[in-house]
Amino acid sequence: MIKVGIIGATGYTGVELLRLLAPRKDVELKVVTSREMQGKAVSSHFPNLRGHVDLEFSAPDTNDLEACDFVFYATPHTVAMNTAAELLEKGVRVIDLSADFRIKDVALWEKWYKTPHTSPELVEMAVYGLPEVNREAIRDAQLIAVPGCYPTAVQLGMLPLLENGLVDSTRLIADAKSGVSGAGRKAVEDYLLCEATESIRAYGVAGHRHHPEICQGLANAAGEKVGLTFIPHLTPMVRGILATLYAPVRTGISVTIEQLQSIFDDRYAKEPFVDVLAQGELPATRDVKGSNKCTISVTYSAETDTVVVLAAEDNLVKGASGQAIQNLNIMCGIDETSGLETIALLP
Amino acid sequence: MIKVGIIGATGYTGVELLRLLAPRKDVELKVVTSREMQGKAVSSHFPNLRGHVDLEFSAPDTNDLEACDFVFYATPHTVAMNTAAELLEKGVRVIDLSADFRIKDVALWEKWYKTPHTSPELVEMAVYGLPEVNREAIRDAQLIAVPGCYPTAVQLGMLPLLENGLVDSTRLIADAKSGVSGAGRKAVEDYLLCEATESIRAYGVAGHRHHPEICQGLANAAGEKVGLTFIPHLTPMVRGILATLYAPVRTGISVTIEQLQSIFDDRYAKEPFVDVLAQGELPATRDVKGSNKCTISVTYSAETDTVVVLAAEDNLVKGASGQAIQNLNIMCGIDETSGLETIALLP
Amino acid sequence: MIKVGIIGATGYTGVELLRLLAPRKDVELKVVTSREMQGKAVSSHFPNLRGHVDLEFSAPDTNDLEACDFVFYATPHTVAMNTAAELLEKGVRVIDLSADFRIKDVALWEKWYKTPHTSPELVEMAVYGLPEVNREAIRDAQLIAVPGCYPTAVQLGMLPLLENGLVDSTRLIADAKSGVSGAGRKAVEDYLLCEATESIRAYGVAGHRHHPEICQGLANAAGEKVGLTFIPHLTPMVRGILATLYAPVRTGISVTIEQLQSIFDDRYAKEPFVDVLAQGELPATRDVKGSNKCTISVTYSAETDTVVVLAAEDNLVKGASGQAIQNLNIMCGIDETSGLETIALLP
Amino acid sequence: MIKVGIIGATGYTGVELLRLLAPRKDVELKVVTSREMQGKAVSSHFPNLRGHVDLEFSAPDTNDLEACDFVFYATPHTVAMNTAAELLEKGVRVIDLSADFRIKDVALWEKWYKTPHTSPELVEMAVYGLPEVNREAIRDAQLIAVPGCYPTAVQLGMLPLLENGLVDSTRLIADAKSGVSGAGRKAVEDYLLCEATESIRAYGVAGHRHHPEICQGLANAAGEKVGLTFIPHLTPMVRGILATLYAPVRTGISVTIEQLQSIFDDRYAKEPFVDVLAQGELPATRDVKGSNKCTISVTYSAETDTVVVLAAEDNLVKGASGQAIQNLNIMCGIDETSGLETIALLP
Repeated sequence: MIKVGIIGATGYTGVELLRLLAPRKDVELKVVTSREMQGKAVSSHFPNLRGHVDLEFSAPDTNDLEACDFVFYATPHTVAMNTAAELLEKGVRVIDLSADFRIKDVALWEKWYKTPHTSPELVEMAVYGLPEVNREAIRDAQLIAVPGCYPTAVQLGMLPLLENGLVDSTRLIADAKSGVSGAGRKAVEDYLLCEATESIRAYGVAGHRHHPEICQGLANAAGEKVGLTFIPHLTPMVRGILATLYAPVRTGISVTIEQLQSIFDDRYAKEPFVDVLAQGELPATRDVKGSNKCTISVTYSAETDTVVVLAAEDNLVKGASGQAIQNLNIMCGIDETSGLETIALLP
Repeated sequence: MIKVGIIGATGYTGVELLRLLAPRKDVELKVVTSREMQGKAVSSHFPNLRGHVDLEFSAPDTNDLEACDFVFYATPHTVAMNTAAELLEKGVRVIDLSADFRIKDVALWEKWYKTPHTSPELVEMAVYGLPEVNREAIRDAQLIAVPGCYPTAVQLGMLPLLENGLVDSTRLIADAKSGVSGAGRKAVEDYLLCEATESIRAYGVAGHRHHPEICQGLANAAGEKVGLTFIPHLTPMVRGILATLYAPVRTGISVTIEQLQSIFDDRYAKEPFVDVLAQGELPATRDVKGSNKCTISVTYSAETDTVVVLAAEDNLVKGASGQAIQNLNIMCGIDETSGLETIALLP
Repeated sequence: MIKVGIIGATGYTGVELLRLLAPRKDVELKVVTSREMQGKAVSSHFPNLRGHVDLEFSAPDTNDLEACDFVFYATPHTVAMNTAAELLEKGVRVIDLSADFRIKDVALWEKWYKTPHTSPELVEMAVYGLPEVNREAIRDAQLIAVPGCYPTAVQLGMLPLLENGLVDSTRLIADAKSGVSGAGRKAVEDYLLCEATESIRAYGVAGHRHHPEICQGLANAAGEKVGLTFIPHLTPMVRGILATLYAPVRTGISVTIEQLQSIFDDRYAKEPFVDVLAQGELPATRDVKGSNKCTISVTYSAETDTVVVLAAEDNLVKGASGQAIQNLNIMCGIDETSGLETIALLP
Repeated sequence: MIKVGIIGATGYTGVELLRLLAPRKDVELKVVTSREMQGKAVSSHFPNLRGHVDLEFSAPDTNDLEACDFVFYATPHTVAMNTAAELLEKGVRVIDLSADFRIKDVALWEKWYKTPHTSPELVEMAVYGLPEVNREAIRDAQLIAVPGCYPTAVQLGMLPLLENGLVDSTRLIADAKSGVSGAGRKAVEDYLLCEATESIRAYGVAGHRHHPEICQGLANAAGEKVGLTFIPHLTPMVRGILATLYAPVRTGISVTIEQLQSIFDDRYAKEPFVDVLAQGELPATRDVKGSNKCTISVTYSAETDTVVVLAAEDNLVKGASGQAIQNLNIMCGIDETSGLETIALLP
């Protein structure tokens, strides 16, 4: 029985962890913490869990957490970096859904997150939990930095191009569209239904925290520094990210659509959660709603000699909690798809 | 292994049957028919099923269907009444999601569905598949008429009041709000996003086909003819029905809210899919999205001496395909909740 | 030139007042106040007003406001009751969109709003600004209490029945569905897109502040105390209220649908903003989005001897700011429809 | 009095023309044609027009139409090219909202629209009705080809860059997001609420009919052939287009954000319907919903040496019917903003 705790499970990634973990017969939910909800039934905060989760929220207590094999952080950034060390010392393996350990360059992290990093040594030991890249390292990791939602979609869409040196990595473009749940369950005016529905807009144009994380992953794949224009858009829906990626073909190289298709097919042939579509099929976020899949199509625009990749995921599943559990499964040495076979809810 | 076929699985109840049946290890999907989609992969019509359902749609073929233990009809009305007899003769048990066998009074059915009924003898043998009322009869039934979406919510909300003779059954009101998926996957102007979103309206005010079905069930519970005003409303969302039910307390009777609460608590104490909320809690359709639950709260308006009941369900699950599978489970003598433990997707 | 000020114009009723007043050639917007937005351009808070409103928000300043002929309060309750007296003394006519002066029974107001009323004498002088009832009194009023959004729809739908003594006024039911903008522009978790979209739920079942206001108006129409069950529902859309009203026919009276239709037709024949639909037509909130109309249909359910009325309005226009301006027009003795001819935006 | 007729006014561009024209005191709506709705009141098809438009749809009749000064075509493509000549001969000035006369290269048009063009001579005489480019030619035009919705947003966003030779016109990217109303009021499965809501997807990736129209306009501005990757996306909302435009800076040129800002400011300084935002402000489609504005912001990504432009419009107004009326105003020599001052509906 895998004993699991969740810190800070009152937001959307929290309820997704619970939805995916609660039905599992091989997982025991030991403790779900929330300072402000302490003593309240988890199922009264998340009515969808009535009859499925009997726990109450408890105050974060080291003893309870230390009794777990795995602890998930579903907290805002800076929480994990301040408290994970203690758990790790006791042998608890930590899966952090926040940004605290994602960026290896601590100075860069500090610039974007505008606060000193209190545990640079944990950054070093942390494994970036993108199974399609780091599966072996994840297996024995003590500390996982679960990738961000945008970085997951953008990297999965770009990797085959960069790994094969097909595109000019200095002029990459990621035009990404996210549902509003990406902003979390925060009482902020901008995300009120009346503000966010029936409208689309770009945001973070001057700079978004996922930019350095994406570039780090792309640079690793390319074996060189990359240049990326990343424009996220707030889309009037709850779940889903669609990343539309534009990459100019590298000078001196010529590509055909057949080549591109087979490069993508091959790259992800054995990946349980990356689904490369046939030519002519295009991903829609609805097709992966509630599922851990990332669906990808690749196409080529001859007119501008540019490769166009479309990658769709559910930002709360493959972009967060589902991927976290995929990491858990790998770390446990069990079937990577355990508890993640949920079929998307359509319509 | 339970061998299952689905006739006409190209609409929303079809994809829900497939979503719920595909993961089951005790169910074998043998055949999925559709005349117009014949030869096309089920998963190309329903991309959420990619990797989960490998079948192609086939033309309805008696031999294939006869090899099944159970056949679901997810067809428009009149299909089942014209073809089910043949299957039943071969010992196939039939679960019909259409309206063909729901109304025992054949003349009444003919009036509302505006066509002669071709199999009155099947109407007689059919069991109305509302487990909370007919569980025993369902067990051995050869032919199930799965209740309609509105009738399920309205009956579950009204039954405890009528069975206990608490309310004046001649002046019942059901103000019901349904998501647009209740209209099915039909290319009809009224259900275009641009027509149906950001608006609410009543429809079928002059008469709705679910009216006689509801009244039949309520009359059975009351032991007398009932009078019902039923006003359905098209609500700008995909899934969900919320029925707001108003029942005047019977003259000479006095009720307290505590009594009402305990009557509802008791009535559904053992029901796995009816969830009676505590006083002060109210159902929302989002809390049951994708799940087979019907959530109910009861309250009392002293000012008008009226009981108000709120009942929420997912019209495609407890209101259709989930309930159909609940019937299947009962008919198989297995755990009634098999394959129906899905937690609602929230947000 | 009508000189106008608006107090507290940072919410949805504020922006609606501005949208409707800005294009008018006979109205001069003198001052728009907001303590927290002081010094900020109105059009940077409401980008739809760019190029239409050049004012900045200013701190509430008595001198500025006293220079106005009319001052609108678009504030939370308790603001107007504490500050309107001063303006009224200087001869400014006040149109209050909050609830401060709507309920004549001060004790009842204090019970529902849970605070002592500081200006009972203003309650007495205030005219309830429902033109279809109080047009003459509005003409010379110094202080208008603009009706609430639900009360407008419910009263307009019920009045013809009660004024004619057709229905049993002790058992009235108002099942009302409102868009989320009714909750205002407040950063509250419940109204986040991710919480409020794709779901419908009742709220305020134990008691809603609009209940006493509605009952006051209905009792005036009926000439007797009324009993009302009022169940509001949060509907996943921005604008619109649909009130579905159920009224049992009074014992000893018999009605026909033709009678009902002609009673409604006659009652509202001269009303510019109440649109009674022909038999068979039903209102939808989308048909009045952005317009000052209330659209009504009446029907009769013989089975339960109940009249069913449907009334649709835009809660921010006829249910708030449009109605406020309709009052302004009447008070100015100009065409009641001035600036209110906007055609609903469809789709 | 400007006498106006509308051919085929049963869709969304039709109702927008009517919404914008009906209130005008200088315009007389003479005839609104629709073969299939003949004899039906316009306001029963479009309930928002009740009380505003008293006409019935009539069959297209040359005499009625010839009595008009201006005739709008709000028809599918191929209607105008087959019937406009007759009207033009009689001196009626024609404003065509369809694609029939937009593309000067008739062979190119025939390739994309897959039918022979029956009036190449009209293509030649037609003026492309983008006032920001062709105002003078529009003034005396007999026949206007109103630009498509995507082409309007993309051209307005790209023009200042191309006219000034700042960017490499061989590698332009337009990532455009459109509301569902862009698909028109057609009973097609893909645009059902249940299919199109809560999801975003690209479409037309292999080629979209607006591509050649956009390229024609961009080439005119650049004075050279352009290369464009154009990826439209179906966005879960009714109205609005947001075009996110990426243009690499031309080799050998260096730009600053201040330069870019002033180039855009200058280009559109006198344009009544193009609103260039200050640095740091970003357009959202909700801010222009129902209005004739196109809102633009420009920014620069140093990392990839790419200019990023965001352009938002209401696809049914500035992207169709509003622009058509802007053309009408110019052709009449009256104030270009007549009847187009509508403030966007927010929220």
